[in-house]
Amino acid sequence: MAKTADTNEGTNQPHEPWKAFQARQRNSDTKRDAVLQTAAHLFLEHGYRRTSMSELGTRLKITKPALYYYFHNKEEILVECYRLGIAAIEQLLDKAAVSHGNGLNKVRAYVEAYAKAIVSFDFGRCVAMLDDAELSPKARREVRDLKRKIDMTIRSYVEEGIRDGSIAECHVKLASFALAGAVNWIGTWYRPDGALSADEIATQFADLLTQGLRANDAKVQVPKKPPTRKP
Amino acid sequence: MAKTADTNEGTNQPHEPWKAFQARQRNSDTKRDAVLQTAAHLFLEHGYRRTSMSELGTRLKITKPALYYYFHNKEEILVECYRLGIAAIEQLLDKAAVSHGNGLNKVRAYVEAYAKAIVSFDFGRCVAMLDDAELSPKARREVRDLKRKIDMTIRSYVEEGIRDGSIAECHVKLASFALAGAVNWIGTWYRPDGALSADEIATQFADLLTQGLRANDAKVQVPKKPPTRKP
Repeated sequence: MAKTADTNEGTNQPHEPWKAFQARQRNSDTKRDAVLQTAAHLFLEHGYRRTSMSELGTRLKITKPALYYYFHNKEEILVECYRLGIAAIEQLLDKAAVSHGNGLNKVRAYVEAYAKAIVSFDFGRCVAMLDDAELSPKARREVRDLKRKIDMTIRSYVEEGIRDGSIAECHVKLASFALAGAVNWIGTWYRPDGALSADEIATQFADLLTQGLRANDAKVQVPKKPPTRKP
Repeated sequence: MAKTADTNEGTNQPHEPWKAFQARQRNSDTKRDAVLQTAAHLFLEHGYRRTSMSELGTRLKITKPALYYYFHNKEEILVECYRLGIAAIEQLLDKAAVSHGNGLNKVRAYVEAYAKAIVSFDFGRCVAMLDDAELSPKARREVRDLKRKIDMTIRSYVEEGIRDGSIAECHVKLASFALAGAVNWIGTWYRPDGALSADEIATQFADLLTQGLRANDAKVQVPKKPPTRKP
């Protein structure tokens, strides 16, 4: 293990008490992670409101005081689930942006990455599925600020695509809402034990949302007024 | 008023008691409608759980017994809101199907009509927004059966489009989920007092979801593997 500024100078080994602290810390982190993962799972399964701290403790086989050692209340756990989900999604989106060319391809990569995040991680599904209206105003503001960063990323890709000519002129905000909506909605129907793989879902969504449903040679009839047909 | 089989034969006027009953009935229907409309509004504003029968009564300026004359409980009201919303959406979808040609155009008309229903009617927004997991198993089954009819309609249009060549080969179920998701999600961000008109939202969604984002001459790069670029 690399020696850090916190290790005991004069020997290559960290102080025993520090080592013990590190071990406890790691242990604590693991338990904290277990609390979060189990909570995310229960929130998604039964809803945030219907999940109690007692139930969470029972599921984790720890006492309530032990649970309250890690988090002061249920809301703190939910905010942390959001934070982890949004961080994971942002990481995927940054990766998508780096490895692709024009705006349209970045949007495609975004949809694919975001869909995969929702399908693959409980924390990602928390971002899409749980109702942040359950939170106190302060916590809600924090979560919405984080979510807004994701929205802004997708809008910037759509704008980039319009500028570089890969995306047709459109209402950027509405297009971004449509993309995010289609993907977020995955959380409402996706079942981890279902027949569709994460890759299948992500690729189909990316295709549909960038290329549309239209067959290459099909004409889309866009009626300005309702067509008047005689029977 | 047209004479009906229930009016008093021998005169052109219905019996006074029947007239009074009809008037009472109309009055009762109007009040029942008012209960439903106010309930839908409160459910959307504060959430179903947080809306109590007392609050509903206060808002309507009627006593609790008067409210319970119309509905036995809050769940009955929610189920009726869903029913009205789904009926309105179905009517719009049927109209969309009649007045358009190929499968792609039907999908376009569907997206436009569905988006308008969500934006224009509180009952439509209830269908998209409220969590049917709040319902008892029996009521939930009823609401989900109704929703499934909408899903089946959109799937049938996508299948029709693939058959008639207007829609590119795709995973019908996933494509339908993406369409419905983008539209349902409108409920989460739409504000009746916002800057965007119902028509603007509906048309943009219809365009994006049928034609995609892609500019006509843009190529979409679909990487089979993540591209390996050297810095």
